[in-house]
Amino acid sequence: MGMKVAIIGAKGRMGQAMAAGVTATDDLELVAQLDVGDDITAETLNGAEVAIEFTKPYASLANVLAIIDAGVNPVVGTTGWTDEALAQVEEELATKPELGAVIAPNYALSAVLAMTFAQKAARYFDSAEVIELHHPNKVDAPSGTALTTAKHIAEARREAGLGAMPDATETDPDGARGANIDGVHVHAVRLKGLTAHEEIVFGNAGEQLTIRTDSFDRESFWPGVLLAVREVKNHPGLTFGLDKLMDL
Amino acid sequence: MGMKVAIIGAKGRMGQAMAAGVTATDDLELVAQLDVGDDITAETLNGAEVAIEFTKPYASLANVLAIIDAGVNPVVGTTGWTDEALAQVEEELATKPELGAVIAPNYALSAVLAMTFAQKAARYFDSAEVIELHHPNKVDAPSGTALTTAKHIAEARREAGLGAMPDATETDPDGARGANIDGVHVHAVRLKGLTAHEEIVFGNAGEQLTIRTDSFDRESFWPGVLLAVREVKNHPGLTFGLDKLMDL
Amino acid sequence: MGMKVAIIGAKGRMGQAMAAGVTATDDLELVAQLDVGDDITAETLNGAEVAIEFTKPYASLANVLAIIDAGVNPVVGTTGWTDEALAQVEEELATKPELGAVIAPNYALSAVLAMTFAQKAARYFDSAEVIELHHPNKVDAPSGTALTTAKHIAEARREAGLGAMPDATETDPDGARGANIDGVHVHAVRLKGLTAHEEIVFGNAGEQLTIRTDSFDRESFWPGVLLAVREVKNHPGLTFGLDKLMDL
Amino acid sequence: MGMKVAIIGAKGRMGQAMAAGVTATDDLELVAQLDVGDDITAETLNGAEVAIEFTKPYASLANVLAIIDAGVNPVVGTTGWTDEALAQVEEELATKPELGAVIAPNYALSAVLAMTFAQKAARYFDSAEVIELHHPNKVDAPSGTALTTAKHIAEARREAGLGAMPDATETDPDGARGANIDGVHVHAVRLKGLTAHEEIVFGNAGEQLTIRTDSFDRESFWPGVLLAVREVKNHPGLTFGLDKLMDL
Repeated sequence: MGMKVAIIGAKGRMGQAMAAGVTATDDLELVAQLDVGDDITAETLNGAEVAIEFTKPYASLANVLAIIDAGVNPVVGTTGWTDEALAQVEEELATKPELGAVIAPNYALSAVLAMTFAQKAARYFDSAEVIELHHPNKVDAPSGTALTTAKHIAEARREAGLGAMPDATETDPDGARGANIDGVHVHAVRLKGLTAHEEIVFGNAGEQLTIRTDSFDRESFWPGVLLAVREVKNHPGLTFGLDKLMDL
Repeated sequence: MGMKVAIIGAKGRMGQAMAAGVTATDDLELVAQLDVGDDITAETLNGAEVAIEFTKPYASLANVLAIIDAGVNPVVGTTGWTDEALAQVEEELATKPELGAVIAPNYALSAVLAMTFAQKAARYFDSAEVIELHHPNKVDAPSGTALTTAKHIAEARREAGLGAMPDATETDPDGARGANIDGVHVHAVRLKGLTAHEEIVFGNAGEQLTIRTDSFDRESFWPGVLLAVREVKNHPGLTFGLDKLMDL
Repeated sequence: MGMKVAIIGAKGRMGQAMAAGVTATDDLELVAQLDVGDDITAETLNGAEVAIEFTKPYASLANVLAIIDAGVNPVVGTTGWTDEALAQVEEELATKPELGAVIAPNYALSAVLAMTFAQKAARYFDSAEVIELHHPNKVDAPSGTALTTAKHIAEARREAGLGAMPDATETDPDGARGANIDGVHVHAVRLKGLTAHEEIVFGNAGEQLTIRTDSFDRESFWPGVLLAVREVKNHPGLTFGLDKLMDL
Repeated sequence: MGMKVAIIGAKGRMGQAMAAGVTATDDLELVAQLDVGDDITAETLNGAEVAIEFTKPYASLANVLAIIDAGVNPVVGTTGWTDEALAQVEEELATKPELGAVIAPNYALSAVLAMTFAQKAARYFDSAEVIELHHPNKVDAPSGTALTTAKHIAEARREAGLGAMPDATETDPDGARGANIDGVHVHAVRLKGLTAHEEIVFGNAGEQLTIRTDSFDRESFWPGVLLAVREVKNHPGLTFGLDKLMDL
């Protein structure tokens, strides 16, 4: 008898991928698949201990509050969370102190690890830049992940008392040096055939450290969601970010 | 007035590189340069607070004991330390509880970070392999660093309860799968033009994490040695491995 | 009205991918989809000018002879062709001098280009090694492509009068140096999440050239097949290898 | 008795590296080393068959004309050649039809091959971008090599009738997409520890081709210069670009 799991957003592409993951995992049991129009109650969740929620930003907060209200631990992959929405989740959780909720902007383990490692490495190098590479259908540049990575690197450098990176560039008429995010240069490549990739490069005199994450398809979210499903009950209250559940 | 530093092994290539590093650093002062034939005493160390020792395995233990005996904190880059030799250093340090000693097999920050990150990442992936690339004058394969990295990965997997990695290989007549170190495959490339490089690749369904370190020349040791020089006095007793001084 | 195209092996995964490619291309028209049990005749090929054949080694020769016999130009992706089988195709083509046939072991343009470029570069470097990386379900190591690449590099070096590559390795107890194919070292990595990848590295004093090809899925065959479909009629007789149709 | 070689610009860093290369090559003999203030005549060139010239843009034309006038074959690495200056060299060579002159913007074989291969590959891919990485003391971005590479890719695409690359970018407030050179995006990374590196990435549905060149130090120019020294006498008249002497 495995742990009982519900899927919210079961008709979406992520929901279907998550259902496939639950089904393929020996010690998990898929007990409910809900989507738009379905009520989220203790009854419809059908005995689930954990509910995996991948829906849309406008729906996610209400879903998560309903899941908590039903006494179930949510694991949430929907993006777009504001500080206000997170505060409402924490308030709701305060009424059920035995429950945990995990909300994370990214469940791909390699992406989570890359960002964490980049943050740790940042203070030890003179130079650091971020190159993100995505499929050409992406409408924004740079990616949200690259932006966050750059900000974390900048913050770690500031905390360590590092000054500006060395850069003698005098002429760059066409903007080849890319985006300057808080002093960290970020470059966005768009290439047919690619999915979602990020490379963070660090340099000192005589040495380079490279951390790269490649996400080839949405299957890559499953191991991270599985980790959250297994851990959420051991972490009462709100956990924001998968790295908080990892031993890094 | 900066911190006073002595170099032991001052005529060697590493010793010269270290002397250049000390001289180029504003808050350090080079007060002694000793080599074979020179006595190591409080007098010859000339007021140094820290002594950087890069010599030969057969000489290093005696040098380090003499440095401690003279009341100076050693930072040691000579390789080949046995458990017995380390134990003697600890014994000597016990007589001078205010002193610290740092002994590390590798002072290149990117190499130290790569190994630490690889160890942390290992438990989160189905697959992991190590590729090391060096100049073709290297006589042993794989490199000691790659061997250690593979063993750390294997150990982290065991501790996390992971089984063998997936590998359907049935025919490999020429040994293309490389060395199997504790279940972790290690590949050694030898290429004119290269110095010392290591790439660790991790894979899950749909995603890959790559950690790579490139050492282009021995200059790359200086930032790590500098970190040890600055920290050694704050860490009484023996510290083995630069990662122990880093916030990782 | 576009060029009429038939698919042989239409129920296989490659056949389906090819049918999708034809359908998505404005100036091509899909007129026949045949599989095991269907006769291959002028009638069943239904006016096709070109027949794309992706089946099994034991069936491909008979299919190709039937396609030629029906007066249609074959583009063949089935692997496993022997010199004898190729000779039979040439013989059959001699009876229809207006027809062309393209048979190629690989239609991924990046793989074809990587091999061609590697062959051209080989004579200009002291060192060259091949690293291939595949999913862990692959049963043979190294990959056929890596084997062929290594042999081509070895041949180009011989023709240019180059001797053995520099390699001072004395101890390699676990075989980390990988397979030695005609003097070229080949390394096979197996990693969950990967598909089919090959990296060829070349080195001289002070410089490195890297050529890498990544195949993420079988979609990657379509641009090469399309090129062959468009060119096959302009190349009477047998063309073996896609590179022969390219301007390299 | 080997081929006699002179060095012009013998006191410069490149001149010294070239002299070291000549001395280390069995079938070459170093017979003259000239620099600023030395006359370049048949007498001072001392019987040389080939003169290697690495000086400054303002001096190079006069040097090369004097070398030709003295009946010696020049191999020139100084950059900054204008069409007018090249035309003067051709005029001078017309008076000595038995002589050849090689002038090349880059003698690193890996860089020359990377650019040539990129040009050949360009027409076969939907997407192509260029990433160049250099030490942070470089004052201009992007590098001249990256600029030339991008222009060659753009030209090859135009000749093959390819349209614009796919790119759905709508918002890029900080310029992360880098320089748009003739429709080809170019990204410039500046990192402590690096020397001169260029990566050209090509993409189609399901596949990627990467060509990368790493120049670790000026030693890397020697194999290309050696090739030119050996071939210059077999190529009467002006040869611009090392690729013209290579079998590509």
